[in-house]
Amino acid sequence: MKRVFVRGGALVAIGLAAVAGGLALGQGDNWFPSRWGAADQRGAANRLTPAKVLEAKNLITKGNVYQLGRAYESAMPIFGTRHFSLRIPQVFGPLGSNKMMYHDEVVSGELGQIGTQFDGLGHIGIGDVFYNGNDRRDFAKAEGLAKLGVENVGAIVTRGVLVDVAGFKGVARLDGGYEITLADFQGALRKQGTEIHAGDIVLFHTGWGSLWMVDNAKFGANAPGIGLAVGQYLVDREIVMVDSDTWSMEVVPNPNPELQFPVHQLLIPRNGIYIFENLVTEELARDRVYEFAFFFGPLKLKGATGSPGNPLAIR
Amino acid sequence: MKRVFVRGGALVAIGLAAVAGGLALGQGDNWFPSRWGAADQRGAANRLTPAKVLEAKNLITKGNVYQLGRAYESAMPIFGTRHFSLRIPQVFGPLGSNKMMYHDEVVSGELGQIGTQFDGLGHIGIGDVFYNGNDRRDFAKAEGLAKLGVENVGAIVTRGVLVDVAGFKGVARLDGGYEITLADFQGALRKQGTEIHAGDIVLFHTGWGSLWMVDNAKFGANAPGIGLAVGQYLVDREIVMVDSDTWSMEVVPNPNPELQFPVHQLLIPRNGIYIFENLVTEELARDRVYEFAFFFGPLKLKGATGSPGNPLAIR
Amino acid sequence: MKRVFVRGGALVAIGLAAVAGGLALGQGDNWFPSRWGAADQRGAANRLTPAKVLEAKNLITKGNVYQLGRAYESAMPIFGTRHFSLRIPQVFGPLGSNKMMYHDEVVSGELGQIGTQFDGLGHIGIGDVFYNGNDRRDFAKAEGLAKLGVENVGAIVTRGVLVDVAGFKGVARLDGGYEITLADFQGALRKQGTEIHAGDIVLFHTGWGSLWMVDNAKFGANAPGIGLAVGQYLVDREIVMVDSDTWSMEVVPNPNPELQFPVHQLLIPRNGIYIFENLVTEELARDRVYEFAFFFGPLKLKGATGSPGNPLAIR
Amino acid sequence: MKRVFVRGGALVAIGLAAVAGGLALGQGDNWFPSRWGAADQRGAANRLTPAKVLEAKNLITKGNVYQLGRAYESAMPIFGTRHFSLRIPQVFGPLGSNKMMYHDEVVSGELGQIGTQFDGLGHIGIGDVFYNGNDRRDFAKAEGLAKLGVENVGAIVTRGVLVDVAGFKGVARLDGGYEITLADFQGALRKQGTEIHAGDIVLFHTGWGSLWMVDNAKFGANAPGIGLAVGQYLVDREIVMVDSDTWSMEVVPNPNPELQFPVHQLLIPRNGIYIFENLVTEELARDRVYEFAFFFGPLKLKGATGSPGNPLAIR
Repeated sequence: MKRVFVRGGALVAIGLAAVAGGLALGQGDNWFPSRWGAADQRGAANRLTPAKVLEAKNLITKGNVYQLGRAYESAMPIFGTRHFSLRIPQVFGPLGSNKMMYHDEVVSGELGQIGTQFDGLGHIGIGDVFYNGNDRRDFAKAEGLAKLGVENVGAIVTRGVLVDVAGFKGVARLDGGYEITLADFQGALRKQGTEIHAGDIVLFHTGWGSLWMVDNAKFGANAPGIGLAVGQYLVDREIVMVDSDTWSMEVVPNPNPELQFPVHQLLIPRNGIYIFENLVTEELARDRVYEFAFFFGPLKLKGATGSPGNPLAIR
Repeated sequence: MKRVFVRGGALVAIGLAAVAGGLALGQGDNWFPSRWGAADQRGAANRLTPAKVLEAKNLITKGNVYQLGRAYESAMPIFGTRHFSLRIPQVFGPLGSNKMMYHDEVVSGELGQIGTQFDGLGHIGIGDVFYNGNDRRDFAKAEGLAKLGVENVGAIVTRGVLVDVAGFKGVARLDGGYEITLADFQGALRKQGTEIHAGDIVLFHTGWGSLWMVDNAKFGANAPGIGLAVGQYLVDREIVMVDSDTWSMEVVPNPNPELQFPVHQLLIPRNGIYIFENLVTEELARDRVYEFAFFFGPLKLKGATGSPGNPLAIR
Repeated sequence: MKRVFVRGGALVAIGLAAVAGGLALGQGDNWFPSRWGAADQRGAANRLTPAKVLEAKNLITKGNVYQLGRAYESAMPIFGTRHFSLRIPQVFGPLGSNKMMYHDEVVSGELGQIGTQFDGLGHIGIGDVFYNGNDRRDFAKAEGLAKLGVENVGAIVTRGVLVDVAGFKGVARLDGGYEITLADFQGALRKQGTEIHAGDIVLFHTGWGSLWMVDNAKFGANAPGIGLAVGQYLVDREIVMVDSDTWSMEVVPNPNPELQFPVHQLLIPRNGIYIFENLVTEELARDRVYEFAFFFGPLKLKGATGSPGNPLAIR
Repeated sequence: MKRVFVRGGALVAIGLAAVAGGLALGQGDNWFPSRWGAADQRGAANRLTPAKVLEAKNLITKGNVYQLGRAYESAMPIFGTRHFSLRIPQVFGPLGSNKMMYHDEVVSGELGQIGTQFDGLGHIGIGDVFYNGNDRRDFAKAEGLAKLGVENVGAIVTRGVLVDVAGFKGVARLDGGYEITLADFQGALRKQGTEIHAGDIVLFHTGWGSLWMVDNAKFGANAPGIGLAVGQYLVDREIVMVDSDTWSMEVVPNPNPELQFPVHQLLIPRNGIYIFENLVTEELARDRVYEFAFFFGPLKLKGATGSPGNPLAIR
């Protein structure tokens, strides 16, 4: 049955069956209000607790830190007509008898949605309906989202799990358009001896990142990744975020040609689960770091849909 | 005696006595090559070791996370003619039968030098000479610094110390232009029962942050902070970074009216020590969190002078 | 009677009586399709003909050129949270044995709506309805307006008329909030001995421009200008554009406190008549140049709502 | 003989013979102070007089206006890592009982040096020496050029001449890298029956513009254009500006492989003559409009090196 709600005096029917493209998503259509209440703006970040911090802490045994963020530079692959520009202006100074001189930089771009990027809850909608039933026509303002802005997320410190699907499949890089199946996912975890816990972040290594600034056209043409089946499995495990070394996290194109980024919709608006894209996973896979402490403070860009970042994995 | 070196066939004398404004800075004028070698671009980040990570880890006992970054928004205080702009463009979509819709944001600004900001080694020079003797005319390029860019710094994970000077002085907020003396600094540490270790980051709470977006004109007119004396003391302790809840970290104006930001020069070019400004320190001071694990992954803005950030303090 | 039309399967009633704030606007509510056809995107620019060019040409008798555009600079008054940033990056080069070196500039801002600004037909709506009945939900796209973009306007070359209302009233500057009445308008024309012709552009000198970068707060707090009465009179004269030395062209606040920029709505969506703001009128008024040839080529910013400019008045 | 001058206490020798690549440029090396005095910042714009305006006026016989500017859009060819971004933010409003709604646009880019672009006197240097002997280290400031900014140029209203070299050579498009010879230039003028007058602007039609957004890679790889010989001829004719339908105006690569953009240096710093690039010339060539009135008001971007534009040709 469809959920029918009243907005602005008009009857609006959101056809959620269309969302799932015929798949049973396991939640029915009653996806809001969220399990964290009708006013919640943090979604699965509510699963982050001191206990998860301490669980993460206990994974740190060697003191090795991995930076998961890529460099932001004009030659990186960028989606569509987004852009990234950085320039160093003429030097300022000298000032004072101490000849103080300084540089700064002027940057422009779709900052939360280029390069290594963290997707907040204001990024993705099912039609006009976003996380917790918020209608974009109410909260999407020119000067920043009035709700669901990335500044609400808070710090993400928790246990992280790497799922080396490329390694499990015995390839350096999965093919573009390959959907990671539930069997792949569970097989990789079994091979690694890793479990998923509630409140974790889950990071997929597909090998796709090896194309970064090597063959940008190929990198952006499509991507391997999870589909709705693994997506729903992760939803049911009550994790916090799904990450990947691709630009899309999920498989592109979706095997169902009528669907565009359906896993984004399953995770973000329907379940408040975050996504992190274009992460560096090579070193974790090489060193077989399948469990780690994960640290990320999203930039508090007020009203933004996402954040750039350089998250840290430590063990 | 002045150091004289040959560059481009010309004799250039850098008057370092002028830098110090007559103070003995404790290093003489032979400040480069750096102690980490003539090719080094990371400065005091070289002090960050797995041992420091483990030292930090062991400070995490409760699992409480503090975000130290402020929100970036157009109403925040900004230095000079720098700017920050964020706009949410018209929505994209709907795409597919699943009605995928998405927002992004377009941002521009002097990104590493507005709001909460981390100063890299390419930010500050003594005349044209920067960290490790690099001449800005050689490495400052329009498309990004060819040396000393913030992408070289790496993750900063180490022990952090809060020095609550406002609390020590018994005030909510130090006065603008007040120089934190060595006696203040040591007294505050003694009162707190805190020591400084090599490889730490040191964070000053002055109370100045209470003016943020409350009285921007007053906030930016001047600031309390350390001077050359405490600066040199910290250099001698071999720390990694000095942080503060002010826009300048150091006292402004300097008591010596001929000097402009001399502590920046002492720390960054002469000693490779980083600076983090406009941090949120209220909550740490309130909770008496004087020691904590500190986590920061600078955005790898290739060739940038600094990075925005939302660093984390955990205990 | 209200116009009722069907869109997206829903009944939408646009209360145009509300637009007029109770005034009779002389057109009833049937303001679209436009007189230039339902597909037209140029509005009153259709009134620009070779004959108007020749009429303008014949006003050139001395060869004196007046630049009507102000300088764009960071200290200029700017509306709300819009911004203007210009930086000169580090120099490029030297290249070749000829030591080619060059600078460029990186600029960001709401370019068609800051400083001297030309308002196109995609700028202003009555609710969601824009010129020629176009619904913004159909044509307002993130990457540029799919209709009514400023690139459609074409060159504006025609006869220009200065109306020196300040001079007529015997003041250097009209008061903020003063509505130029029909009597003022007609009296000023009579005093000058000037007529309005179909296809002209009409430029008001209020003296308000003397506050530009002298007292930005006062400049932006309100403004003198025309109201709906003079607006409708100009509509009936079939002119092409209304210009002014203020940021708003029309009187702000409107004497009817329920109305926000109603003259913008009367001119742009209802009648396809353009607006140019923040023009330099002092020199024309001083030299009593009440008729002139006017030249402006809007920047073809594809899909933009307006254009910056430096239009020329010649006689 | 080399010109030797003293700056900052050091001896600096500018090797101007190198500039010319062995050619006699007809001026010797004493190219500054300029003929318009040592303080001049307008160069050849000083040749623009009321008499030239009237000469231009008299070319207007039909009232036909040609827009010479191209559309600015993200798909246009752009040099190197420069960028152009335009986004329409979320709508503002509705405001008031009249439901005022409005859009604006946020734009960023190297605005004076992308797309249709007018090169000012601060754009090009011979080493560090710019027009009138100004040293870039003195006037190139982060917040804008302190001298030679485009705001100094003023209106450009004068006689324009189209030189249809493609038509003279009987081709639709000259080859990339083809240098227009003096014989080509004079032959085309003779065929057209056109003369060059002092104070004119001269616009070359090469047909290269037909590649615009059709084959951007080919468009930017090289270009046909004039070399030093025609450049010097035009200098001697005392014109104001040289324009073209290519991105470089001059031939690229220069036949002398040691030289990079030497005609830019000949015109801009040495002679104060302006350059306009990426103009639309097809329609003028098609209609055989070889003489026309030319109108351009450079955007007064304070301290900028150039200006975007949509100049007008009228006859």
